[in-house]
Amino acid sequence: MPLIQVHLDRKLYDESADQIAEAIHEAQIKVLEIPANDRFQLFVPHDAGEIRFDPTYGGVDRRSLLVIQITMVARYPVKLKRALYEEIVARLEELGIRHEDVQIAVRENHYEDWYAGF
Amino acid sequence: MPLIQVHLDRKLYDESADQIAEAIHEAQIKVLEIPANDRFQLFVPHDAGEIRFDPTYGGVDRRSLLVIQITMVARYPVKLKRALYEEIVARLEELGIRHEDVQIAVRENHYEDWYAGF
Amino acid sequence: MPLIQVHLDRKLYDESADQIAEAIHEAQIKVLEIPANDRFQLFVPHDAGEIRFDPTYGGVDRRSLLVIQITMVARYPVKLKRALYEEIVARLEELGIRHEDVQIAVRENHYEDWYAGF
Repeated sequence: MPLIQVHLDRKLYDESADQIAEAIHEAQIKVLEIPANDRFQLFVPHDAGEIRFDPTYGGVDRRSLLVIQITMVARYPVKLKRALYEEIVARLEELGIRHEDVQIAVRENHYEDWYAGF
Repeated sequence: MPLIQVHLDRKLYDESADQIAEAIHEAQIKVLEIPANDRFQLFVPHDAGEIRFDPTYGGVDRRSLLVIQITMVARYPVKLKRALYEEIVARLEELGIRHEDVQIAVRENHYEDWYAGF
Repeated sequence: MPLIQVHLDRKLYDESADQIAEAIHEAQIKVLEIPANDRFQLFVPHDAGEIRFDPTYGGVDRRSLLVIQITMVARYPVKLKRALYEEIVARLEELGIRHEDVQIAVRENHYEDWYAGF
């Protein structure tokens, strides 16, 4: 039950929401081996000015910012988390979204912190 | 100071925001025994396509998705958390919101992680 | 890489987004000593009714609510967190935002929970 929350520019959302949703979901299936039907995604499109960042942080050439917040159970080793980030940004690159323009933040909780309809 | 963040379809928000807000708040008062005036709720209405889910995950018949994110201090035993989920979904059912269509995610922090106006 | 997410009334956002963004960022630089270019901020403007609160909780005279959610690495001592809250609300007061009307919630994670474009 990872819960995915994506904050992104409205223009990018309008153009590519389906592909972005799929890219993130496929990365989770491949790396975390979650069931294919374990999809819970919230998209928050933002108007100009609502997403603020510095283009230079980390020494990269950042031109835009798409933020992916992942809430998931604390069970994945560090190596797997990093593999997840790599898989997500690689799939987003295929959509023309530069990896420099992606931020991912994971917040962990525990099994008892979820209710999922049953 | 639990902070409640609700993501839901705009249509459902327009029709039932007051009742949903009240249902969640009353469930917290009853189960967690928070003070009646300890209310901090953020509603994020979503347009079609912004909330994405699989209708079958967990073997239920999911038709829509309302996500409740709860940030609260780590002090409640598992039993109480589960009682909270049951109370919330029972009260939402009374409003015609199917429990299969609800997801709840708790994120815990500590007392020092809050500022609440004083 | 603290990630800042601000929920506020649309009117206040329209009038003061730049100054609020700067106030929070400057507070982080001063108190947490983050690099000046370590800025990741999401603003979510809300229409009337989407932000719900009780004016009396905590014994204060609350008239509005601006919520700041901070996701950051668990590395700052309690004293520094409290200094951060004080610095943020002091700077917001200068913009006419009453401290009684501010809620801050910190959610901590670890270094491995971040990807920031590199």
